[in-house]
Amino acid sequence: MIAEKMKPLMANNSAIRTMFEEGDKMRAKYGAENVFDFSLGNPDAPVPAEVKKAIQEILEEEEPGVLHGYMSNAGYEDVRETIAESLNRRFGTEFSHKNILMTVGAASGINVALKTILNPGEEVIIFAPYFLEYNWYVGNFDGKVVQAPTDKETFYPDLDAFEKCITGKTRVVLLNTPNNPTGVIYKEDTIKEIAAILERKQKELNRTIFILSDEPYRELAYGGIQVPYVTKYYDNTIVAYSYSKSLSLPGERIGYLVIPSELEESEMVFDTASNANRIIGCVNAPSLQQKVIGKCVDTKVDLDYYDRNRTALYEGLKGCGFDCVKPEGAFYMFLKSPTADENEFCRTAKKYNILMVPGTAFACPGYVRLAYCVSYETIVNSMEGFKKLAKEYDLA
Amino acid sequence: MIAEKMKPLMANNSAIRTMFEEGDKMRAKYGAENVFDFSLGNPDAPVPAEVKKAIQEILEEEEPGVLHGYMSNAGYEDVRETIAESLNRRFGTEFSHKNILMTVGAASGINVALKTILNPGEEVIIFAPYFLEYNWYVGNFDGKVVQAPTDKETFYPDLDAFEKCITGKTRVVLLNTPNNPTGVIYKEDTIKEIAAILERKQKELNRTIFILSDEPYRELAYGGIQVPYVTKYYDNTIVAYSYSKSLSLPGERIGYLVIPSELEESEMVFDTASNANRIIGCVNAPSLQQKVIGKCVDTKVDLDYYDRNRTALYEGLKGCGFDCVKPEGAFYMFLKSPTADENEFCRTAKKYNILMVPGTAFACPGYVRLAYCVSYETIVNSMEGFKKLAKEYDLA
Repeated sequence: MIAEKMKPLMANNSAIRTMFEEGDKMRAKYGAENVFDFSLGNPDAPVPAEVKKAIQEILEEEEPGVLHGYMSNAGYEDVRETIAESLNRRFGTEFSHKNILMTVGAASGINVALKTILNPGEEVIIFAPYFLEYNWYVGNFDGKVVQAPTDKETFYPDLDAFEKCITGKTRVVLLNTPNNPTGVIYKEDTIKEIAAILERKQKELNRTIFILSDEPYRELAYGGIQVPYVTKYYDNTIVAYSYSKSLSLPGERIGYLVIPSELEESEMVFDTASNANRIIGCVNAPSLQQKVIGKCVDTKVDLDYYDRNRTALYEGLKGCGFDCVKPEGAFYMFLKSPTADENEFCRTAKKYNILMVPGTAFACPGYVRLAYCVSYETIVNSMEGFKKLAKEYDLA
Repeated sequence: MIAEKMKPLMANNSAIRTMFEEGDKMRAKYGAENVFDFSLGNPDAPVPAEVKKAIQEILEEEEPGVLHGYMSNAGYEDVRETIAESLNRRFGTEFSHKNILMTVGAASGINVALKTILNPGEEVIIFAPYFLEYNWYVGNFDGKVVQAPTDKETFYPDLDAFEKCITGKTRVVLLNTPNNPTGVIYKEDTIKEIAAILERKQKELNRTIFILSDEPYRELAYGGIQVPYVTKYYDNTIVAYSYSKSLSLPGERIGYLVIPSELEESEMVFDTASNANRIIGCVNAPSLQQKVIGKCVDTKVDLDYYDRNRTALYEGLKGCGFDCVKPEGAFYMFLKSPTADENEFCRTAKKYNILMVPGTAFACPGYVRLAYCVSYETIVNSMEGFKKLAKEYDLA
């Protein structure tokens, strides 16, 4: 009954559903406060008060027919200009509204970008571990995902291996930093090295290779670490951004693409992306939420909310003897499983009402992902269970 | 630089852009009030006051983290239940939230539906004239559009010809009633006949054929005419609905799919569609607007706003000697061109500052589309030009 292409997704999906249902059963049995669910990447820092105020102001200021009406498929020009100016102020870029395309979140932005530039059979290189949803996005356009390895101590790209992944079919290199699931942020040196390799390969292969930089976690960088703005290092870069995390608005589906003027045939690519936005069915980003961004462009959730969790979870797990890279961004931690089969480790953790996602779900067996977008209490209260769990594996 | 599949769209798009730019030039030269632009299907009836009130109430009632947060990919269960109950009250259906999937407008709904059920190479039958954007939606999934003819006096389906269009590759019959561009509404008899043909063909060909009923104009039906609810006549029907027209909210991108329980493997199709909603990049319909629908489910724009335009334009054009079917729904009129080449007719009309869309843009040469979602004054003031235009073609 359903399309052939959807069948593997639905098979995979039932595994995820089973995991969720198990969580629900545990909550029903033991009480929600006694279940330590680190499986969901659901932004839970409070929505800044500015958002409500912005909506109230917009309702008074804007004529409803304009506020809720059609605009260009790329979005309201004033909002796009506001975003461009904010990026320029913060990152030293030189964007205008002509470089900003409003999208239905970053997921949609990635699909718009791939629809615009990817041909069937062309390759998209992604550093593993990664958010497996990318596979479906690439599959939407019959592209092929090529996994590039990272160093298992740092989760930084293995650049020699990366260079070998680039072929005459490579069209896109998908970067995600701050990274889901590792929390790693690529520093300027790494971005420069990736850019240098791609510049060389573009010439060698005589073809355009794009970086598609998926940056929903850009604003979640701790300890004052800078997240390099990729367009400054490589011309053929498209950035996909979302306000889901920076304003805790994941349900509103609001984000944008940056298509810089330096990109080859930039205007044509921008126009094509605007049309792609229309024909994939989005038409335009939700109009009221665009206006909210116009008023809240420099507003952010309280970073300390996540940072306190990050420290508590990291210190706690280290103290138990677990091994993991300290995340610098996003709200994930990627823990080395104390046994090769991380599925077994996840099953054992459930004895202590601890829920985690196996690394296999990120193309990286032997690890588990913990999402620390949970209450601080959840982290504190989970530690007794983690200690027992560590003992089962004879950790320090 | 851009994907091969996007190239024909971009070529086509530049023709549309030229048309818009011409309109803008005319407005700059003659003043907006002296240009009679019937080319844009942009809902312009005032947004009902209930919408603003609903948003204000929601901001006070809902916790922001919940209001703007993630929910199931299918949307908020309470909103879906409210919509189901409203449909049941009005149309005698028996839906529950399990049959309603919130989407980013109907355009997205159609894409979600096609992603769910259409395989590459399979055929989608559409009655011409039709909204050519459907071609791109079907192309997104490598399906093939098959045009079925309509009677040129009534724009009702030619059912014998339709039956002959159905093959072993037919997967979907796309209906759009009230229709863009003709304004025609299929009555119960026609829907019953289409259903009977499809039932017969499903058996004969031993395959499932879906009706995908695109209904953004359902609430724009004049003179008390009933728009039959297609799921009552044919089990394998999916309905795509949008609030763009009924609430004048086209920028907000809010609508839904109906996947009835009678549809074959209904639960599987619904689950798959929820996942399709996610992987095409929408994830879910904008959360605040979902809640708005929950409060405004039975609210509509003032139908008289469009009806007055409809009568004024129809009577005026008939009085000039033009030939057209009186539209019963939507906000379009499909006028027979007094000369075989309707592009020439459109060019001549421009002498009188009248802008219309050639029928070729709806797979129906020899006609032009007029969108009467304009101010009443535009229609009244355009009549002098239409009279002169009629004289050029020696009409009565």
